[in-house]
Amino acid sequence: MTQAQRIRGVLAPVVTPFNKDLSPDPERFVAQCKWMLTQNCGLAVFGTNSEANSLSANERVALLDALLAADVDPARMMPGTGCCALTDTVRLTEHAVKAGCAGVLMLPPFYYKDVSEDGLYRNFSEVIERVGDSRLRIYLYHIPPVAVVGIKPGLVERLMKQYPTVIAGMKDSSGDWNNTKMMLDAFAKSGFDVFVGSESFLLANMKNGGAGCISATANVNPAAIDRLFREWRGADAEAQQQALDLVRKTVGQYVMIPSLKAVVAHFTNDPDWATVRPPLTDLTAAQAKNVIDGLKKLEFDMPGISQAQAKAA
Amino acid sequence: MTQAQRIRGVLAPVVTPFNKDLSPDPERFVAQCKWMLTQNCGLAVFGTNSEANSLSANERVALLDALLAADVDPARMMPGTGCCALTDTVRLTEHAVKAGCAGVLMLPPFYYKDVSEDGLYRNFSEVIERVGDSRLRIYLYHIPPVAVVGIKPGLVERLMKQYPTVIAGMKDSSGDWNNTKMMLDAFAKSGFDVFVGSESFLLANMKNGGAGCISATANVNPAAIDRLFREWRGADAEAQQQALDLVRKTVGQYVMIPSLKAVVAHFTNDPDWATVRPPLTDLTAAQAKNVIDGLKKLEFDMPGISQAQAKAA
Repeated sequence: MTQAQRIRGVLAPVVTPFNKDLSPDPERFVAQCKWMLTQNCGLAVFGTNSEANSLSANERVALLDALLAADVDPARMMPGTGCCALTDTVRLTEHAVKAGCAGVLMLPPFYYKDVSEDGLYRNFSEVIERVGDSRLRIYLYHIPPVAVVGIKPGLVERLMKQYPTVIAGMKDSSGDWNNTKMMLDAFAKSGFDVFVGSESFLLANMKNGGAGCISATANVNPAAIDRLFREWRGADAEAQQQALDLVRKTVGQYVMIPSLKAVVAHFTNDPDWATVRPPLTDLTAAQAKNVIDGLKKLEFDMPGISQAQAKAA
Repeated sequence: MTQAQRIRGVLAPVVTPFNKDLSPDPERFVAQCKWMLTQNCGLAVFGTNSEANSLSANERVALLDALLAADVDPARMMPGTGCCALTDTVRLTEHAVKAGCAGVLMLPPFYYKDVSEDGLYRNFSEVIERVGDSRLRIYLYHIPPVAVVGIKPGLVERLMKQYPTVIAGMKDSSGDWNNTKMMLDAFAKSGFDVFVGSESFLLANMKNGGAGCISATANVNPAAIDRLFREWRGADAEAQQQALDLVRKTVGQYVMIPSLKAVVAHFTNDPDWATVRPPLTDLTAAQAKNVIDGLKKLEFDMPGISQAQAKAA
């Protein structure tokens, strides 16, 4: 796979629907993923905003299998596979590669802190060697506000040198444009695809040679984000960016994951969508109303989501 | 089980031996645990220093089963069972309770940061309700330098109120004596057993109503730590504490886990013991020599460890 054929554009860390007993619901998950694809949004399933770290490895495998069984295109998928345990990361990565996924989004092992660059290199290297599949494309996941353990340029450089076709890019969720810019300047010309972790940086990323964004808010606002990705050279790009930022600010005024789910619950007319696993908690009714009221003021909509989900029910 | 019958004293987060291919080695693990018991040291298997967070749930279950199959007494065990994923925590906790373990040491889910007290309460509550076994004894694991997500007094209070027999105590690995003292003052009289996470605080903990310590260094220096636990009222308690601190300082001059394993490798004459899983790295030969030389100056020994391990080989 050449760089030109690799996945680009807008992806969502797809929110994971739970039943009342907190078990994952594959039917609504499939429907959500199919709707995202109609919005030209790729599927970074099992990301931070998917509550993937609150799912066991078995649950992740079962959900990916449900997508495949429902003919959701793996070439549009970039599942999160990085776990604390080497053996879990290998298992999930192997499963994703064998399924034909476009790539995997890989957290560093995040329990032990202050680990050395050598230790992180050794981790990614072990995973690559054990999976041993030339189709593997890894996107390194840098999200220090949550994982604390991050991905530094020295590590990227060593990994790209040893595994030039496997190390395909990164997701930068540092929220720090200076870090993204540094990664772009250092590696984009060598075919390293930098995705920003929020559409707030999408225009800046595209102007500097980036590959797109993988953003929480793409779960609810995918078409508008994709439009900016396609039209970033256009005259109204700044205006589009500002409109995206307003939606993100409205959804992100409370904890992001329950807020996203409250929005999906509202537009699908399905209150169960609001359910999150511990350690998260649902928004209060008043908080959810504030988010929805704020979105209404922006004339926000999720076209077709209700019908897409109704088919699943 | 009354408080008087509960596990007390010194426990080690038992280091986990790996084969050259980084798979866990149940034989050497069993031998290590049996040796610890001869030193009157309890088995907090699958702790931070056990690299438990680098093991999959399946690997932890298999290792505990190996101990049980080798007749290691579960009444001396407090396995770590707290994972990021609710379903993993429930599975491991259920397995430990059914095995008859004295208790479980439970990390909060540690991926998502800045979670609310409500969210953490909901997590522990879900685990307790799902396991649904009156034999369950939970020791809450507070280790903010690593997990970042911690256990605050408000959470302890709510959990003790709702689950008075289940919430048995905590391990405080904050490294902050003020925090330990606050927990002791608030809860020790209600039958809440506070273990310090380092023997450096053992004497202070015992003087203030604590239950013992669960310490990395108990892997290598168990008998001396246990002696202070038994003799903390004695005239030479301060001198004993200082001697323990010197050993800990020597072993902890480098990253603790590979350093512990280097010490075990030396005293068992088995270099493979030094192997750690990524993201950790082994000590360099020079670092390992510094640790061993430092211990020799202290006339340190691990009596019987070599014979105990030889039987396993």
